[in-house]
Amino acid sequence: MERLNKGLNVIRELSQETSWPASVIPMSAESDGSHGFWPEGFSSGAVSADIKYSNRNDLMLLSADAPCIAAALFTTNLCCAAPVMLSQDHLVRSASSIRALVCNSGNANAATGEQGMRDARSMAEAAARVLGIKPEEVLVASTGVIGQLLPMEKVLDGIATLPSSLQRESVLDTARAIMTTDTFPKFFTIEVRLSKGSIRLSGLGKGSGMICPNMATMLAFLATDAAIAPSLLQKALLQANRNSFNAITVDGDTSTNDMVAILASGAGHEIAADSMDYTLFCEALEALMTFLAKLIVIDGEGATKLVEVRVAGAADDRDAELAARSIAQSSLVKTAIHGEDANWGRVVAAAGRSGAHFNQDELELCFNDLVVLKPGFIADFSEEAAAEIMAKRSYTITLRLGSGPGSARVWTCDLSKEYVDINGSYRS
Amino acid sequence: MERLNKGLNVIRELSQETSWPASVIPMSAESDGSHGFWPEGFSSGAVSADIKYSNRNDLMLLSADAPCIAAALFTTNLCCAAPVMLSQDHLVRSASSIRALVCNSGNANAATGEQGMRDARSMAEAAARVLGIKPEEVLVASTGVIGQLLPMEKVLDGIATLPSSLQRESVLDTARAIMTTDTFPKFFTIEVRLSKGSIRLSGLGKGSGMICPNMATMLAFLATDAAIAPSLLQKALLQANRNSFNAITVDGDTSTNDMVAILASGAGHEIAADSMDYTLFCEALEALMTFLAKLIVIDGEGATKLVEVRVAGAADDRDAELAARSIAQSSLVKTAIHGEDANWGRVVAAAGRSGAHFNQDELELCFNDLVVLKPGFIADFSEEAAAEIMAKRSYTITLRLGSGPGSARVWTCDLSKEYVDINGSYRS
Repeated sequence: MERLNKGLNVIRELSQETSWPASVIPMSAESDGSHGFWPEGFSSGAVSADIKYSNRNDLMLLSADAPCIAAALFTTNLCCAAPVMLSQDHLVRSASSIRALVCNSGNANAATGEQGMRDARSMAEAAARVLGIKPEEVLVASTGVIGQLLPMEKVLDGIATLPSSLQRESVLDTARAIMTTDTFPKFFTIEVRLSKGSIRLSGLGKGSGMICPNMATMLAFLATDAAIAPSLLQKALLQANRNSFNAITVDGDTSTNDMVAILASGAGHEIAADSMDYTLFCEALEALMTFLAKLIVIDGEGATKLVEVRVAGAADDRDAELAARSIAQSSLVKTAIHGEDANWGRVVAAAGRSGAHFNQDELELCFNDLVVLKPGFIADFSEEAAAEIMAKRSYTITLRLGSGPGSARVWTCDLSKEYVDINGSYRS
Repeated sequence: MERLNKGLNVIRELSQETSWPASVIPMSAESDGSHGFWPEGFSSGAVSADIKYSNRNDLMLLSADAPCIAAALFTTNLCCAAPVMLSQDHLVRSASSIRALVCNSGNANAATGEQGMRDARSMAEAAARVLGIKPEEVLVASTGVIGQLLPMEKVLDGIATLPSSLQRESVLDTARAIMTTDTFPKFFTIEVRLSKGSIRLSGLGKGSGMICPNMATMLAFLATDAAIAPSLLQKALLQANRNSFNAITVDGDTSTNDMVAILASGAGHEIAADSMDYTLFCEALEALMTFLAKLIVIDGEGATKLVEVRVAGAADDRDAELAARSIAQSSLVKTAIHGEDANWGRVVAAAGRSGAHFNQDELELCFNDLVVLKPGFIADFSEEAAAEIMAKRSYTITLRLGSGPGSARVWTCDLSKEYVDINGSYRS
């Protein structure tokens, strides 16, 4: 209950701070006491299967009333998990008829070899059986410790009881089932006004550690009632992902289980290629995914700060991204953020080793609107003003490399002693 | 005194654990009560200039009796410090007549613009004046906080008193002057038996944070009485550096001030190109630099462990290095090392995201000689045996990617809460 309330508070605050696109109406999770609801045609539920954690749900099911158009992105980690490989296969075979997604926490089913693949397949078969659909219409995801086989008896018993827990509301409760070291569940719904009416778009996510997504992030499941072609949905997802989940880092470690999937039921308005509605949909999808991505960074292992790192004036976007990622992943920058120390030297040092091209005498650095460094390394700023900004829970660090057209944006968190605590003992 | 004793103990222990090349005789720092000595023709000294720290030396001078052949490697960080730029220039102008090296701690003179360059030049001029040599015969180095101007009055006053502190012995005391967050001074001398007699080779180093050298490491100054041509010395240094200073990481942050320099007085035996003596010299130089590199990792900020990460069976050396660096820099692997948890899943996950090519079913992983993972992700090992290895201060993690010829070796340390403590408040 405490975690649910924390989630409701953090989500509400971030939603209020967010500049949502003009076509988007955020649907506050607590406004109607529903604790989050899916678009029409979707329901979800969770049960406790005692996989690793006791006294909490650890198995969830997202179910669609009718076959959905689906798109997904998966980790680029070569050691990808069994459920990632299985879901990739099912997506190829059933991109226009995905009906459900089953996911467990407490065990990643990664680095588990042949038996791991058999277990992932069993999860899809069990979910298909209880829902009366085909196994290849089920996506499977797992999150948790790497390198241990799933306790399949418990998992299959849990799946058998999942259908009775399905409901359209209280999704925030469902979201708790896939938390690992997350401290609160993450779910949000928006309404998007299109030319002929509105559609709804919902997203559920989890993160915490091993967060430096490359193609997708730990886990995010989205659903919409829009009607959209498979190739168009995949294109929109890929584009939205680039500046949302692919632009965050907690610890620079790309997970074996990253997966973001979206299901479109088609019950609502149609989104045609090259239409203004498609542009609005993409904008809204990116806004929702960015919102979920920020929730993941806010709740990074041991994190107390959410910092947006912007790099501008680079020779090109690639250079800007190299510099932004280097700054956002630097342990020294992250500990300085934690210590609320305006140690700008570490920021320029991180950019300097990034591989981006620039002339160090042209660097300009701001913390929010405060200029802390002017070209020529002139650092004549008020330490008090800088300290005030760094005491905030959330702020922006902007580094201008020169006068080029390239820019990039990455979100990061601080590195705290709690991160070490959490990860010095996670497996046991 | 406590730090000096810690240094003597750690250095002695590591020396005893090291497999020195057959031609090398390690010269234990405490064997003759000298606390370390330079080869014939070199002396050093240190004074307190009150630059940042009080009650300790923070300015040192290495002086050669006669002009030396010199070679050096510098950071590849674009935001390189003023002393790095000045020393690069002096090396080009005086590669066969370097006479001295002056270095301060407490201030990196990095990101200091034009005034920083003037200050570095003033340091070289002041050292040249008191030694009766030319400014371009002096190398300059600095280490400490980035982005603050040096207190030049104090620095110049300090340099004026440096010559009276010069001596050939007690170098470990001198080495304390360039410590920042280091917990002990680092210096070692070896004797190298060549065809016609022996030469000596000494090295002094410092590290601690912002350690992920790219071309060179934080600071290391070496001296030898060998007679060797400038191009040959540079070639030997570059080659030895690849597998020593360039193969360590504390926090993945390449510093603005990295510099490794070697001076050869020529007073001893000559080393000709393509000779067996050159091979022995290179082997000894790499052994000494690797020894210093390991001392830097052992004394990394907050570090309690020294772990050698080996990758073998890669398609080529580049793939092996990508995987080894990814493992060695992973915050999740480093916290697991700290927590003494045989969390092998994090090791394979770090390799999987490294960009190296391999088939995950062929991975084989060992902690020292204990096989923890066989191909096909079979992890059938004794947790007790793994725990015993991970409780050691130093051990090896070996990942075999497949059956290719590529291999690499990187040294890393653990990530502890002390790292966060140290870096959350370093600047202030």
